[in-house]
Amino acid sequence: MNPAAFEPRNPDYAARTRESFERQAAMRTLGATLAQVLPGQVVITLPWSEPLTQQHGFLHAGMVATALDSACGYAGFTLMPAEAAVLTIEFKINLLAPAQGEHFRMVGTVIKPGRTVTVCEGQAWAIDGGQERLVATMGCTLMAVIGREHIQG
Amino acid sequence: MNPAAFEPRNPDYAARTRESFERQAAMRTLGATLAQVLPGQVVITLPWSEPLTQQHGFLHAGMVATALDSACGYAGFTLMPAEAAVLTIEFKINLLAPAQGEHFRMVGTVIKPGRTVTVCEGQAWAIDGGQERLVATMGCTLMAVIGREHIQG
Amino acid sequence: MNPAAFEPRNPDYAARTRESFERQAAMRTLGATLAQVLPGQVVITLPWSEPLTQQHGFLHAGMVATALDSACGYAGFTLMPAEAAVLTIEFKINLLAPAQGEHFRMVGTVIKPGRTVTVCEGQAWAIDGGQERLVATMGCTLMAVIGREHIQG
Amino acid sequence: MNPAAFEPRNPDYAARTRESFERQAAMRTLGATLAQVLPGQVVITLPWSEPLTQQHGFLHAGMVATALDSACGYAGFTLMPAEAAVLTIEFKINLLAPAQGEHFRMVGTVIKPGRTVTVCEGQAWAIDGGQERLVATMGCTLMAVIGREHIQG
Repeated sequence: MNPAAFEPRNPDYAARTRESFERQAAMRTLGATLAQVLPGQVVITLPWSEPLTQQHGFLHAGMVATALDSACGYAGFTLMPAEAAVLTIEFKINLLAPAQGEHFRMVGTVIKPGRTVTVCEGQAWAIDGGQERLVATMGCTLMAVIGREHIQG
Repeated sequence: MNPAAFEPRNPDYAARTRESFERQAAMRTLGATLAQVLPGQVVITLPWSEPLTQQHGFLHAGMVATALDSACGYAGFTLMPAEAAVLTIEFKINLLAPAQGEHFRMVGTVIKPGRTVTVCEGQAWAIDGGQERLVATMGCTLMAVIGREHIQG
Repeated sequence: MNPAAFEPRNPDYAARTRESFERQAAMRTLGATLAQVLPGQVVITLPWSEPLTQQHGFLHAGMVATALDSACGYAGFTLMPAEAAVLTIEFKINLLAPAQGEHFRMVGTVIKPGRTVTVCEGQAWAIDGGQERLVATMGCTLMAVIGREHIQG
Repeated sequence: MNPAAFEPRNPDYAARTRESFERQAAMRTLGATLAQVLPGQVVITLPWSEPLTQQHGFLHAGMVATALDSACGYAGFTLMPAEAAVLTIEFKINLLAPAQGEHFRMVGTVIKPGRTVTVCEGQAWAIDGGQERLVATMGCTLMAVIGREHIQG
């Protein structure tokens, strides 16, 4: 997939995405950073941290999903019109390997943008000693919501 | 589904489940409580809290997934032999309504236990002003892992 | 879930569902029958037949999915307005046991109806010697499509 | 993903895959051909045909899923030992566009092989007037089954 193929409908897509990311308290809880914002592709990074782990010391699958869902959601958001908010309809995650590493890189990419429904894919990479390993993949369906009170950005 | 139909292989299933839950730092981050442990069914509760929210003030879909994944994982764990650890292979979550409420109740139920692979379903309920509302459903596939170093419980 | 709780927006929902089912050539290929149509719940039955099998003589997972997808799709369709067509956005199926049996009963039930997006769950039961066994579960997301040429019913 | 990176454990993987495919009656019902067998990647092609359609004349989502499931299943099968059979644990499919076209090309690729559990991804391409279009993506989890009577290949 070449995200450069996508044309954003909102020229301010990057600023708008960054502004919405800042309002996700969950991203602060993860210690997550918005590392890259391209039309149709968003990268979020985070360090390993103990409060995010399950009983074996790996990142909890749900915490991996939290970061991947935001990466996919914002990837879709970059292609939405300025007045739209984005909601996740559903996602599915496959855990390929224990999420152990010093850092994690979550890549969300739009596969199919749409007026109402957008489909994205996510990849979670664990970085350990300079080596990257794919630890999870996500399929994610988003909805653009326009004109609903209290739901913006 | 009637979880009472399941016979645990480990008579200490409840203590073992509670002990593993205590070691999930992610559950402390969620403010989550293990409210019920039955053979094949586990209930986790948590209050709304700002550090778990997305940009509209609802619980982040990934945080809902984190609690549901633990509810499903521990539901499967109650039916596993004493020497097994549990890992999530994959899960899928459908977000039916914004996760807004004072409290949340996550119910994980075993649909099909197996020697290696166990399938569970999860339901996330939001409680607001004494009213319960179904806000998410999960399908979850678990693997029992036996004899792998560093992965216990 | 109590499907009787749903109020159809189209009083002709049953006739409309049956008429659309008749136009699904894939249902004839499966030898499938529309056994029940209620507001928010549809049951499809089919006999085992060799042309639908995989290499071990069980129903192919995809053929189980075909019948379940139609059961879920039409369950959603019963609650849509008269001018809407229904498309499947995505589904996920868990195969719990080999699909072996004399007959199969596919039950699709609406979990959350919506103006645009509807979420359903499906259950596939195998019937053998008078015994029913749950062999697969589905989670399914549908979209109501209105006003697109060539897509009706 | 570069499937050439995978080393088959069974040097006869291609013959064994073709032999199992021949025994899938469902593939004959689809009019499907095993177009390519590589270690970790399988391509299945089929023509549009009326008995596979839904009510709008597109391929039924379940029929797309049937071909994709076989492509993914056999992709995993190429990397399994000679004594293993393959069963699908679960799959999820996203329908990106109506499955209309003259021909369809289903590509299954292993993302993560494992002793017990293998994860694959599938892509369904519709070919119309020489143009290819991605119409569906699949995530699929397989289990290698060894030593179960009546389940071979």
